[in-house]
Amino acid sequence: MKIIKYPNRKDWKNLCKRATLSESNLDEVVKEVLEDVKLNKNKALIKYAKKFDGLNITSFEVTEEEIEIAKKKVSNDLKEAIQLAKSNIEIFHTSQKEEEKEVITSEGVTCWRKSVAIDKVGLYIPGGTAPLFSTILMLGVPAKIAGCKEIILCTPPNKKGEINPTILYTASLVGITKIFKVGGSQAIGAMAYGTETIPNVYKILGPGNQYVTKAKELVQQKGVAIDMPAGPSEVLVIADETSNPAFVAADLLSQAEHGTDSQVVLVTTKTTIVEEVLKEVESQLEELPRKEIAEKALENSFSVVLNTIEEAIEFSNEYAPEHLIIASDNATQYISKIINAGSVFLGNYSCESAGDYASGTNHTLPTNGYAKNYSGVSLDSFVKKITFQEVTAKGISKIGKAIELMAEAEGLQAHKNAVTLRLKAI
Amino acid sequence: MKIIKYPNRKDWKNLCKRATLSESNLDEVVKEVLEDVKLNKNKALIKYAKKFDGLNITSFEVTEEEIEIAKKKVSNDLKEAIQLAKSNIEIFHTSQKEEEKEVITSEGVTCWRKSVAIDKVGLYIPGGTAPLFSTILMLGVPAKIAGCKEIILCTPPNKKGEINPTILYTASLVGITKIFKVGGSQAIGAMAYGTETIPNVYKILGPGNQYVTKAKELVQQKGVAIDMPAGPSEVLVIADETSNPAFVAADLLSQAEHGTDSQVVLVTTKTTIVEEVLKEVESQLEELPRKEIAEKALENSFSVVLNTIEEAIEFSNEYAPEHLIIASDNATQYISKIINAGSVFLGNYSCESAGDYASGTNHTLPTNGYAKNYSGVSLDSFVKKITFQEVTAKGISKIGKAIELMAEAEGLQAHKNAVTLRLKAI
Repeated sequence: MKIIKYPNRKDWKNLCKRATLSESNLDEVVKEVLEDVKLNKNKALIKYAKKFDGLNITSFEVTEEEIEIAKKKVSNDLKEAIQLAKSNIEIFHTSQKEEEKEVITSEGVTCWRKSVAIDKVGLYIPGGTAPLFSTILMLGVPAKIAGCKEIILCTPPNKKGEINPTILYTASLVGITKIFKVGGSQAIGAMAYGTETIPNVYKILGPGNQYVTKAKELVQQKGVAIDMPAGPSEVLVIADETSNPAFVAADLLSQAEHGTDSQVVLVTTKTTIVEEVLKEVESQLEELPRKEIAEKALENSFSVVLNTIEEAIEFSNEYAPEHLIIASDNATQYISKIINAGSVFLGNYSCESAGDYASGTNHTLPTNGYAKNYSGVSLDSFVKKITFQEVTAKGISKIGKAIELMAEAEGLQAHKNAVTLRLKAI
Repeated sequence: MKIIKYPNRKDWKNLCKRATLSESNLDEVVKEVLEDVKLNKNKALIKYAKKFDGLNITSFEVTEEEIEIAKKKVSNDLKEAIQLAKSNIEIFHTSQKEEEKEVITSEGVTCWRKSVAIDKVGLYIPGGTAPLFSTILMLGVPAKIAGCKEIILCTPPNKKGEINPTILYTASLVGITKIFKVGGSQAIGAMAYGTETIPNVYKILGPGNQYVTKAKELVQQKGVAIDMPAGPSEVLVIADETSNPAFVAADLLSQAEHGTDSQVVLVTTKTTIVEEVLKEVESQLEELPRKEIAEKALENSFSVVLNTIEEAIEFSNEYAPEHLIIASDNATQYISKIINAGSVFLGNYSCESAGDYASGTNHTLPTNGYAKNYSGVSLDSFVKKITFQEVTAKGISKIGKAIELMAEAEGLQAHKNAVTLRLKAI
């Protein structure tokens, strides 16, 4: 992990740049898969399961029986943990419900917004080394609170054609409508266009590898909404004299173990703090099963020493981290200065793992600097906000003349006429 | 306008399909422009102004002097009208401010969301036949309320290199930071990448032709957020025995005059209502300056006769109109059945023009069926919602065990360790 001391402010932007993946022929490959799934539906899914994953699979939908078997395989301790996390996520996301507020803008003119669930949503949960059942909570719980009628889930099975039991247990717990054993860009195609088995949906959410991400980006251009553009996970930790170096090191490592392309950034006001933390990183690293992954991630990572915590926050705003930890006893006093971040962890006991699993906040967050212009997943992600207006005869007599003048000035006579006719009729 | 009587429910989907534009080489052309602007900045803008619009322009920024001159050219009546509209839009969008709600999810675990303005946004206002100053209100007012620091505006000048005075007046009124005389896909490139004169922004909003739309779609893939995917404007009117046929006709025409690709749909429960409305359409059409445009739009449009208003609303939900007018004295009783729509106009005096200009709701809305998965522009469009969590020692002791179990089950030992260390320290 490189240490950069007192970098010049004009170099911050460059420092904050994320590594870009070379796209090469990704675009073409994924486009071809999507077109194929659109045209040949299940047949294409069967083909790609064989081609990409060596799987002979013809029946994609997980059965009730499979779910019942899975439920028995999950320990009671883990079930209770998942239920606690679910409960906290429910509490926080329920608090995001927006009440309808009728607003009288002029006499006789009443306007309001109503949140209405997106009817059909699709969740993607990656396979691979870690069974990310926590992401099912993060996406499924708010979808359910919003009132989405159809919540489907696609996830790739293992070589035996099975799905991790904890994934099935969690999906069943949150009320996923249907679960399908399909992964990769073909799963995104199936949810975007529908197949004989898999219904099409209006919005697709969830993490994935570069193929999945590219597929989401491409179907978005065809009118299917997605949660947000994705990049490798990241954390920025601001540490001062009140930080616990072992805690900070553990937080950096918990991000680093996500993937070799993860990035962790430590920003402090003293070189000694960096040194203490890095010493801890080295010793904790030795114990980790995912040591090699974390080591690679640390190679792409860096520490910055700046003059003040205020400056550290300014640097963080430029970086716009997915996760921002302010590992300081004085964390709350800096809140007003935070402009760009996905989720913020305040104080020495607010570790990122808390937000990853069980504090109640969502862990699907903007990466790659997108915290400058995107929010993380929330209840908002599963609703449309429809505006309503009721203009009475009194109302149109109050604002009608203004509309006539503006419509005329924009050269839109028919717009004017719709008002004129009504004004005459009053 | 075609009349379709009692269509079979299985044919609804097809009926609701919008015409798709052939893209041909649009993608390539726009990609080339964007690349050029990214690389050559102002030089490229100068080139395209000459090439596409025959303009010799070297200075893009509108001066204070130009704005002062423009202000004098706008009539006081029109100024007052714009101010009234601005005030109503302000009232409604201010009501969308979200209060911070601290939520205790478990003892010692506090979570909340904070809305923070997107620092830099860019608005695009098209040139062409109608000077859309109303769109400046719809985008500029909420940007200002949100607290965006930099709000720039790009719009193409006329052949003399001038911008419509009402556009300049309105931009100045709402507090646009800088106005630039640049149009087309090159303007989107300039706002996405920045030039020597035009600062780059994090989000681009506003309507435009197919080049502008494609450019927004392409820069979105590079991490610049956009308001929403765009298509031709549209209205669906549901009329019953209590409707005024002349009002309904005027509303259909006010949509039809937007462009030849606009679509208007009339849904009623009686053939006689359709006949009365179409008779009115014919006679009102004769008086319109934009008659030819409206006529062409009507050719792509249709009326549907169904059995009940409830069925009409179900049809509307399948169509997912940008604007939905329920031209009925009983409009409010159908609100709960509306699932997919951008903005809804209730009752015989709520004409679409009211929402287009002055009721207070936003007129930047999802078209092309995107009301199924997108909201219109609102205060939300100009903020990110950052989540915060503060977990105390007590808090981590409450949820720590659950996190440890879940992290372990996901195979993420470092995530677990970040909690274990803290639990040990308590």
